[in-house]
Amino acid sequence: MKPLVQLLAVEASPPSLQDNTGDLDRLKKALAPLLDGRQPTVPFARMTAVAEAFRRAGFKGTAVMNDLLGGPELVDFLAAPPRVLAGVALDLGTTHLEATLVDLVGGEILARANRPNSQIAFGADILSRIHFAVKDDGLLQLHRAVIGDINRLCEELAGELGLELADLRAIAVSGNTTMVHFFLRLNPYHLCREPYIPLVNAPDPCRAGDLSLALHPAAVVWVLPSVGSYFGGDLISGILASGLDQAEQTSMLIDVGTNAEVVLGSRDWLVACAGAAGPALEGGVARMGMRAGPGAIEHVFFDEQNGVFEYQTIGNEPPRGICGSGIIDLVAALYLSRMIDARGKFRREAAAGRLLETPAGPALVVVPAEEAAGGRAVIIGQVDLDALMRSKAAMYSILTTLVNQVGVGFADIHRIYVAGAFGRHIAPRQAITLGMLPDLPLTTFQPVGNSSLDGARRILLERTSRSRCRELVRKITYIELNVNQEFMLRFSGAKFIPHTDHTLFPSVPFFGE
Amino acid sequence: MKPLVQLLAVEASPPSLQDNTGDLDRLKKALAPLLDGRQPTVPFARMTAVAEAFRRAGFKGTAVMNDLLGGPELVDFLAAPPRVLAGVALDLGTTHLEATLVDLVGGEILARANRPNSQIAFGADILSRIHFAVKDDGLLQLHRAVIGDINRLCEELAGELGLELADLRAIAVSGNTTMVHFFLRLNPYHLCREPYIPLVNAPDPCRAGDLSLALHPAAVVWVLPSVGSYFGGDLISGILASGLDQAEQTSMLIDVGTNAEVVLGSRDWLVACAGAAGPALEGGVARMGMRAGPGAIEHVFFDEQNGVFEYQTIGNEPPRGICGSGIIDLVAALYLSRMIDARGKFRREAAAGRLLETPAGPALVVVPAEEAAGGRAVIIGQVDLDALMRSKAAMYSILTTLVNQVGVGFADIHRIYVAGAFGRHIAPRQAITLGMLPDLPLTTFQPVGNSSLDGARRILLERTSRSRCRELVRKITYIELNVNQEFMLRFSGAKFIPHTDHTLFPSVPFFGE
Repeated sequence: MKPLVQLLAVEASPPSLQDNTGDLDRLKKALAPLLDGRQPTVPFARMTAVAEAFRRAGFKGTAVMNDLLGGPELVDFLAAPPRVLAGVALDLGTTHLEATLVDLVGGEILARANRPNSQIAFGADILSRIHFAVKDDGLLQLHRAVIGDINRLCEELAGELGLELADLRAIAVSGNTTMVHFFLRLNPYHLCREPYIPLVNAPDPCRAGDLSLALHPAAVVWVLPSVGSYFGGDLISGILASGLDQAEQTSMLIDVGTNAEVVLGSRDWLVACAGAAGPALEGGVARMGMRAGPGAIEHVFFDEQNGVFEYQTIGNEPPRGICGSGIIDLVAALYLSRMIDARGKFRREAAAGRLLETPAGPALVVVPAEEAAGGRAVIIGQVDLDALMRSKAAMYSILTTLVNQVGVGFADIHRIYVAGAFGRHIAPRQAITLGMLPDLPLTTFQPVGNSSLDGARRILLERTSRSRCRELVRKITYIELNVNQEFMLRFSGAKFIPHTDHTLFPSVPFFGE
Repeated sequence: MKPLVQLLAVEASPPSLQDNTGDLDRLKKALAPLLDGRQPTVPFARMTAVAEAFRRAGFKGTAVMNDLLGGPELVDFLAAPPRVLAGVALDLGTTHLEATLVDLVGGEILARANRPNSQIAFGADILSRIHFAVKDDGLLQLHRAVIGDINRLCEELAGELGLELADLRAIAVSGNTTMVHFFLRLNPYHLCREPYIPLVNAPDPCRAGDLSLALHPAAVVWVLPSVGSYFGGDLISGILASGLDQAEQTSMLIDVGTNAEVVLGSRDWLVACAGAAGPALEGGVARMGMRAGPGAIEHVFFDEQNGVFEYQTIGNEPPRGICGSGIIDLVAALYLSRMIDARGKFRREAAAGRLLETPAGPALVVVPAEEAAGGRAVIIGQVDLDALMRSKAAMYSILTTLVNQVGVGFADIHRIYVAGAFGRHIAPRQAITLGMLPDLPLTTFQPVGNSSLDGARRILLERTSRSRCRELVRKITYIELNVNQEFMLRFSGAKFIPHTDHTLFPSVPFFGE
């Protein structure tokens, strides 16, 4: 384990008339044997602080070193080792920020915090924020908003351990490419314009002071590299966390948010693509969709005998809406109970008693008003079903296009890692029923949790992960789906439950044409 | 020749759907083959500027690279190569700043400028400035004063070539250790207190923006390293310029300012020391001393037959005072004409008609009022003579102590390089007569001009010089004279003309005890 910031206990002989080495030179010289003979550099802004602390401590104590790819950097000196050497791992999400405080010596997670991304005030989705960014001082406003959020997270994390903000010595940031652009105050103009080119994929590390981050001003800011506009550092984190790039057998990583991002490969090769999966799976469904949070229905089962929906909410609270995994369960149940047909349309003969007519078309009552939070029935409308059908079709088309591009079959895939909240909550059985995921043994699917956050933690702790992710970026072949003919064809075939070619899903009941 | 800043012509294929590499990554990748496969780093503050310029130029043009010891750094991108790639070489003197504008491609000196060090307002000499620096915001004031001076020099240099300040891409700074501390805003407190320790001897390069220097904000600031408080980067420059550290035969380098700094050695070993030579040789003599400038008497000869002083002034202007070399000539002439004795005291019997009585004691008229500038006679007083005697004794003692420490004799010295204005103007014959320099063949002595400035120019142009001077610092053994018993003993013996042991100076007439 070679953390991004390292403490080195060091003692130098005090200066004398016989040894007039300068204070900083003396410290560097004493450190060199601990750094494989390499003398560290000292950034200009830290010279005085380091030299004075070294002298004040009597020329012995603890050096604080940033471990950069270019070599060791000396940024602070302490008379005694700190109680905790803390770093922040950050998952920089479009809607949510999640952070952990990590002990850089022991590797443990010391505290957790999260908060909504306050950039939402400038645009709910990425595209609207990009448009906002390129007007006037939009980029600066977006930048300041997210820096403010991170600073509040840092305060919360430090506070929990009784630390000062200056005790936070590093931050590793994992986010999609656009969020990283906002974070680094980089113009996102070309991200959403063909051919979709980032200003930078792999930025060099900078320091907290460069970005007005509230950590120690010399804290390293290490941003996970991206592969393209639609394939960000959060996915690279996922690869690190799943070990996809080190396995002998072919595996797949799926991360579903507003976009579905997929990586396929092994230690020998890696292919990736990303496509719009639609907001249906991320709480964006027209009326009742919500993020996976308290009161969200995360699982639904239809009790055919009693003709009622059994459901489970997050936190066991009265239902307020349905999150992505709940919708998948629900729509699978609707299909199996034949309340919807293979095109995802309500079958009035089967759903009759449960249907409402709304201004937006027919909708089905899942939880009646009297059981639901705020006395507001949880319903799913035809428009919601249509959105889900597009999302699931997109998802399956992305997977098949990718697999087909490299000439492997789904059966060759040893493991499918499913990242994020989607991976944590989804029931693969139901997703297969819908024809969203391929019809493989359920043990193939493995949730990997918030791998974006986990990847950031690895960056804080492991030098191998830092060089590995730089290597990954070079290794991945990215397939652009936005202009892919095959994808378009496959998308049409996938707009049925489970699929126009039902032989692809032998485990799913087929009710005929 | 590997200059500190390099231009690299580069062309990348434009981005496409098949190649979605980020702009900055694309440029780095295109540069790598031109940099022995190493990808350059891009400092945070330059990311946007570089990426946008690269795109604007159609993904081809000229990259501006800083050549740092740690590796190449990409800091700018130009659509077309600049008319001139300019760097500034700076001799950062206590009283004077001297700078040249250097063509980093061809190596030529394009312009020259100099100006007084405006820190003089805060203290005439180094010690008083150090005292000023440690009070309140004294350091900041001294720092700002010298930065202001440098910025004005840069304006002048750039203006002369019709360049913008942002066209200046690098600055190499050669100065004594204290001046470098002020330049970098480093606390000089311990420089003048036993055991005389600098905050730093070899600072890592920084950027112009760090110091509010008016060059391009990403211009490298490369400071020549020092060996100790009294042995600065200006001397390291002298070693670079003289080639002392690369010669097979033993040579010596002498630099005389307020201090006399001396290096002895060859490619195999280097020994150095420094000592107060007094201000007598730098224009600090009580009444009539002045820096070598227009109207300064730089050479004096006594015409015994006509009983008059023949003299030569700088710029052939009416005499206004005497500079260091003039005083040496004058005192040698006074000794040879026996107007002073071996102790440097006026011999009233010989000097009678020329002596004045002043409140400070007797003084001798060198140039009568009617010949002198402003009708003010140029005189030399007994106090001036006493000061010179101390200076010359210090100088010779420093040389003998050093030579003796390493067990070589003066006769073993192949070459004695004499730096600066002192080296340019001094007549070695007269300095030998006084017993200031050893009695060696005159061809041994070789002026090296402003080697501080020349060393800075080499730093701008040659990577070998940059690594060589870092190596030099490690190689030099520094002998502290402030507490050296031998030096004290030798000093007493050297307070006579030429010396108490006149056999050391066979070429100098000896007039008996």
